[in-house]
Amino acid sequence: MTVSVSSAFDGGNGDVVDASAPDAITVRIQKDAKADFMQWFYFRVAGLGGAPAVVRLINAGEASYGAGYEGYSAVASTDRERWYRVPTSYADGVLEIRHPGGANAVWLAYFVPFSMERHHDLIGRASRDPRVRHEVLGRTVDGQDLDALHVGEGPLSIWCIARQHPGETMAEHWMEGFLARLLDPDEPVARALLAKATFHVVPNMNPDGSRRGHLRTNAAGANLNREWAEPSLERSPEVFLVREQMIATGVDLCLDVHGDEELPYNFIAGPDGVPSLTAAQRELLARFRAELRRRSPDFQTERGYPPAAPGQANLRLCTNWVAERFGCLSMTLEMPFKDNADLPIPETGWSPARCAHLAEACLDTIAAVAEELRVGLGSRR
Amino acid sequence: MTVSVSSAFDGGNGDVVDASAPDAITVRIQKDAKADFMQWFYFRVAGLGGAPAVVRLINAGEASYGAGYEGYSAVASTDRERWYRVPTSYADGVLEIRHPGGANAVWLAYFVPFSMERHHDLIGRASRDPRVRHEVLGRTVDGQDLDALHVGEGPLSIWCIARQHPGETMAEHWMEGFLARLLDPDEPVARALLAKATFHVVPNMNPDGSRRGHLRTNAAGANLNREWAEPSLERSPEVFLVREQMIATGVDLCLDVHGDEELPYNFIAGPDGVPSLTAAQRELLARFRAELRRRSPDFQTERGYPPAAPGQANLRLCTNWVAERFGCLSMTLEMPFKDNADLPIPETGWSPARCAHLAEACLDTIAAVAEELRVGLGSRR
Amino acid sequence: MTVSVSSAFDGGNGDVVDASAPDAITVRIQKDAKADFMQWFYFRVAGLGGAPAVVRLINAGEASYGAGYEGYSAVASTDRERWYRVPTSYADGVLEIRHPGGANAVWLAYFVPFSMERHHDLIGRASRDPRVRHEVLGRTVDGQDLDALHVGEGPLSIWCIARQHPGETMAEHWMEGFLARLLDPDEPVARALLAKATFHVVPNMNPDGSRRGHLRTNAAGANLNREWAEPSLERSPEVFLVREQMIATGVDLCLDVHGDEELPYNFIAGPDGVPSLTAAQRELLARFRAELRRRSPDFQTERGYPPAAPGQANLRLCTNWVAERFGCLSMTLEMPFKDNADLPIPETGWSPARCAHLAEACLDTIAAVAEELRVGLGSRR
Amino acid sequence: MTVSVSSAFDGGNGDVVDASAPDAITVRIQKDAKADFMQWFYFRVAGLGGAPAVVRLINAGEASYGAGYEGYSAVASTDRERWYRVPTSYADGVLEIRHPGGANAVWLAYFVPFSMERHHDLIGRASRDPRVRHEVLGRTVDGQDLDALHVGEGPLSIWCIARQHPGETMAEHWMEGFLARLLDPDEPVARALLAKATFHVVPNMNPDGSRRGHLRTNAAGANLNREWAEPSLERSPEVFLVREQMIATGVDLCLDVHGDEELPYNFIAGPDGVPSLTAAQRELLARFRAELRRRSPDFQTERGYPPAAPGQANLRLCTNWVAERFGCLSMTLEMPFKDNADLPIPETGWSPARCAHLAEACLDTIAAVAEELRVGLGSRR
Repeated sequence: MTVSVSSAFDGGNGDVVDASAPDAITVRIQKDAKADFMQWFYFRVAGLGGAPAVVRLINAGEASYGAGYEGYSAVASTDRERWYRVPTSYADGVLEIRHPGGANAVWLAYFVPFSMERHHDLIGRASRDPRVRHEVLGRTVDGQDLDALHVGEGPLSIWCIARQHPGETMAEHWMEGFLARLLDPDEPVARALLAKATFHVVPNMNPDGSRRGHLRTNAAGANLNREWAEPSLERSPEVFLVREQMIATGVDLCLDVHGDEELPYNFIAGPDGVPSLTAAQRELLARFRAELRRRSPDFQTERGYPPAAPGQANLRLCTNWVAERFGCLSMTLEMPFKDNADLPIPETGWSPARCAHLAEACLDTIAAVAEELRVGLGSRR
Repeated sequence: MTVSVSSAFDGGNGDVVDASAPDAITVRIQKDAKADFMQWFYFRVAGLGGAPAVVRLINAGEASYGAGYEGYSAVASTDRERWYRVPTSYADGVLEIRHPGGANAVWLAYFVPFSMERHHDLIGRASRDPRVRHEVLGRTVDGQDLDALHVGEGPLSIWCIARQHPGETMAEHWMEGFLARLLDPDEPVARALLAKATFHVVPNMNPDGSRRGHLRTNAAGANLNREWAEPSLERSPEVFLVREQMIATGVDLCLDVHGDEELPYNFIAGPDGVPSLTAAQRELLARFRAELRRRSPDFQTERGYPPAAPGQANLRLCTNWVAERFGCLSMTLEMPFKDNADLPIPETGWSPARCAHLAEACLDTIAAVAEELRVGLGSRR
Repeated sequence: MTVSVSSAFDGGNGDVVDASAPDAITVRIQKDAKADFMQWFYFRVAGLGGAPAVVRLINAGEASYGAGYEGYSAVASTDRERWYRVPTSYADGVLEIRHPGGANAVWLAYFVPFSMERHHDLIGRASRDPRVRHEVLGRTVDGQDLDALHVGEGPLSIWCIARQHPGETMAEHWMEGFLARLLDPDEPVARALLAKATFHVVPNMNPDGSRRGHLRTNAAGANLNREWAEPSLERSPEVFLVREQMIATGVDLCLDVHGDEELPYNFIAGPDGVPSLTAAQRELLARFRAELRRRSPDFQTERGYPPAAPGQANLRLCTNWVAERFGCLSMTLEMPFKDNADLPIPETGWSPARCAHLAEACLDTIAAVAEELRVGLGSRR
Repeated sequence: MTVSVSSAFDGGNGDVVDASAPDAITVRIQKDAKADFMQWFYFRVAGLGGAPAVVRLINAGEASYGAGYEGYSAVASTDRERWYRVPTSYADGVLEIRHPGGANAVWLAYFVPFSMERHHDLIGRASRDPRVRHEVLGRTVDGQDLDALHVGEGPLSIWCIARQHPGETMAEHWMEGFLARLLDPDEPVARALLAKATFHVVPNMNPDGSRRGHLRTNAAGANLNREWAEPSLERSPEVFLVREQMIATGVDLCLDVHGDEELPYNFIAGPDGVPSLTAAQRELLARFRAELRRRSPDFQTERGYPPAAPGQANLRLCTNWVAERFGCLSMTLEMPFKDNADLPIPETGWSPARCAHLAEACLDTIAAVAEELRVGLGSRR
């Protein structure tokens, strides 16, 4: 029985260096194409014949966010449906993952994968709802379709986008939960909200990076969340196309969904430091955070990124650019790769099911603040 | 609303030429890489906004099996789970597909697709059975794993392989049904058979062609079912690796599963014309066909390929090479892209569910002839 | 083909008078045993052979809540899973239900049934959770078990009971949704709440009436929600046993779940008119209603029962007796047999899926007020 | 925590004598109403709080088939979906069942139950198929509907009935599998057969005994399989009504499905000893057995009931009466309560999944002999 390591599949990342024995597997994480980012991994270890496996990611020390591997546990699955955390340690630049015995083959990943096939299933399911308008905004660098879903009858314009950084798969798991609730025909919050607002949803901003197994960039090596100031059809068509649509529809609320490698918490980063930021925008953001905190014990407001100083915001980020351009509520939701340390579940860590619950709470929170989205804001739409 | 056609996904094939209106979409089928084969297509038409669509495959006349498009209907799905046939006509070298209104987006294909993600799910599910030994035989040209599943305790060595030709997706749908029955812990036929035989199953012989959306070849442009005489690790590693294993295990029965573009029937092609073919091999083949006919009204023995003349067999085909090398029962199962004209179901045509039922009948037939596999055969294993 | 009407099954109610033709079926609703209540019906009409059916409930004018049939539509199902509303009219004391053609057999009911088999499934599922303690409180008059589920680690004592009136099946549908969320291991609201409170849940207070197809009473003819002042093991063991447990655990919040025949709204009735009612209890109730209103557009606070005058409360009702005895937040949740007129869905009317969503919102609301349950209340536990 | 034993539900049987501790539970099996039969048991043990349980059926020595408890293991479930065998011993007239710890509540039964609710679900599902004609043949003694399903376009008249003896629940599990295959729109054997034959299927001959938790009789105390010579609407309406229909349709094949308490094998009993039995009938029976044996290793022909001497058949049994009356192929299929000793699965014993597989093989066997059903038989239809 020969051990075999492969990442030659949708979203895979990992070059095998040595697989001479189950307990001596070494793998190198691949860099994003045309970029220096690396941290995402996703590969299959086969040929175990029930033996325990020890996998060492030997270039983990060169990863973009070294602290991301501290206190972190990898996810594993033998059936690709149920994913669980496995013992993982990080020392001397090596991430060591130990899988208990009992399996022929095991899939290991940085977080539960979300394939482009699953993306297509999500689009197919959603776009069968007669209330939904599915739109291809254009093409990615690799020639994939950039999918948007539009739904709702109301004047408010709400944008939700996810996975600018393709390795942050929790963002599309969040989208799966969000769309399920938004389109649930029996759910009164969603039904009432769809009468007040029109949602513009881009479940996956970065199909190319997703399929290629990137951490942060698209096929041209662009970190999309640094492209909002001056996107181009050549280098960052994904941002260019969405930005164009945002300008066409106006924006009353924008939620950009991400994952954070280091912090073991869910939090919202706002457009601090944006030049035109008003007190009304700040208050609305504070209220959103507080309302979400009230709705989900998986959300908190104590930890997060340090705010940029006034006027010092990087307007190349989606949240900042949107806040500046539209004068509206604009937010980045960050979920952990690790777990929510306030309410941990060691077996799974932060997980797709928990992403979905947080998405439901976010939808409820949007409903809770909907009436205020245009009150007191000098909307620039 | 703009119509958009894309095939940039797992197994996709189709270059859009014009998509200026829902009823005037033209698409070109792409050739297999490094080869002249073409016939498989699989693409998504989005932006329909409920309008009926007319899609014209304008180079269909150059397809490998022109007669395959006569009397043929394309398959379509809006949710990627339920696939149905849609009105299709073939004239003047153009295949015209008409999809009724009502959908945002529709996926169209030559036959119901079977993605590499689904392949991985199949492997994951099967390899969790403690009786199964999953083995990676080696790497494909594109670097994917070539997966084999071994199961059973008995001395008979039975090989089942599928999808040498990647566009013949029905072959892997057949495998899904075959493995489900073979590994069903409550199924007495399978349980009894696993005591007599060891199965060696390769659910997908051509992962590269599958992912690339090829009709017949691997990433090197090789038609795998013409490589059995002299495979090489460079050009046809998939065959090389399986052949090596066959030689190691010996073969008492080999079933190679395919789809046929033209004939609207299920049939078995045998190793007619193989130099060493014995009367015992012929009789066993006749018996297998008769037993399968008895078990499945979807199988017949009237139509099929004309037999090669004695001694004229092309030993580069799997079935012929195996028959010659091992002196055993060796067969090619062909299923239609169209329908079984003896028992048609116009709504779906030949379909994954029907592939699965035929696979169950094949398993039962293997059980029925198992006792005879070594009787009267001058086995050369 | 002969039409046949039967209610000889779990929860069935309806005596056929005439079934000579599909469009001339007459049925009589049966009274609760040893009582004069009647309104619930549930029977199967078979032998339709695809013909449309007209069923007339000829003694509907004698029903307990005549106004309940005004503006009401019956529910129907052909597969017992998907239930939908069918055209129904009420005039001259006759309730006329029209089922469109296309079915062999159709099940018709006053609301979507919830059988005792489904109750057992619910108990089985819940009691497999290692956090749950399942307890049989004792026996009903007919000798069935009275099931309670206890879960949680916290000091707060929260009681949720449902279906004192067995014909109000929406109450147990609500329970199904409530328990699903309460026991969801990934749901943070539930997880956090279970650290603060212990839930005592009685999903079905009236198994005998449920199985017998009663509207309001148990097997002894007792309206359980008029038995709380002086229950007895002979006449109302269901109340006697729960009351005993409540006294043992104390009560900080009690939610008693019901359906209302007339009002097309969800609302909460409080213990108005209870002698000892304090301002703190009133305020907490107002807050609960407001918080639930905020969480569910299917809930409202405008319509409901007229409050009892101070000191005039009927202490034989659960909500009133609990409020008086424990000085805590005590509520009756009423859901419609018809629909929520504020947010109607004509196809299904009020439905199991919507009961579940309201239950989720109720759980969230309990979490929202949990910290206040003992603040300001002169608890008499 | 108090242990509680209850059988007050659909199909329940068992009177608790003592439940003072988990390891000292004693229960008495109840006799069928108006009859002396007893053997079936089905009850819930609650209040275990995770403790192992020992349940002693203290009057097991009075059961109808004492040998049935020898070498037998009871079935148990904690979720009512997954049933498994538990350690069971029989000595001194006491059947002792031991359930391992870990559960709050466990359901124990003689075989996996099949409730009347599940029966209604089965009827609902089947009767939605537009090819099926559902017919209520009449009323049982307790007033339940006696359901028949008719399907097929062909001249052959095939009757399949099950569960004359209500405690033989495997017979209705068999029916679930049989109907699933018969009505599978993609299954070619069924499709081809339905063109040749019309099936008349009575999935449950004894709804009253089923609901009451009887072993062998209906609500009037009649053993239905001793009523075929002279059934009456008063005592055995179930047989009377089916017999009437058989006479109306004629019978070319009759399969009556049962369970056997003692023999750990599947077998078919034929109409040996029927006065008019012909050689052709005998040969066809032998052929059916042989074909079924070929199709299912769970079937065998070595063991079974000793044949009645020529002319000595009891014509009150369905199989004998039908053979005599119609001169056709008439059979009783017996499945074990225990296991198939030729191919045992100790975890589940004989089980619903295995009943379904045997039913599939029976359908295939009917198809295999269909052409011969009228050849050589002096049909008296």
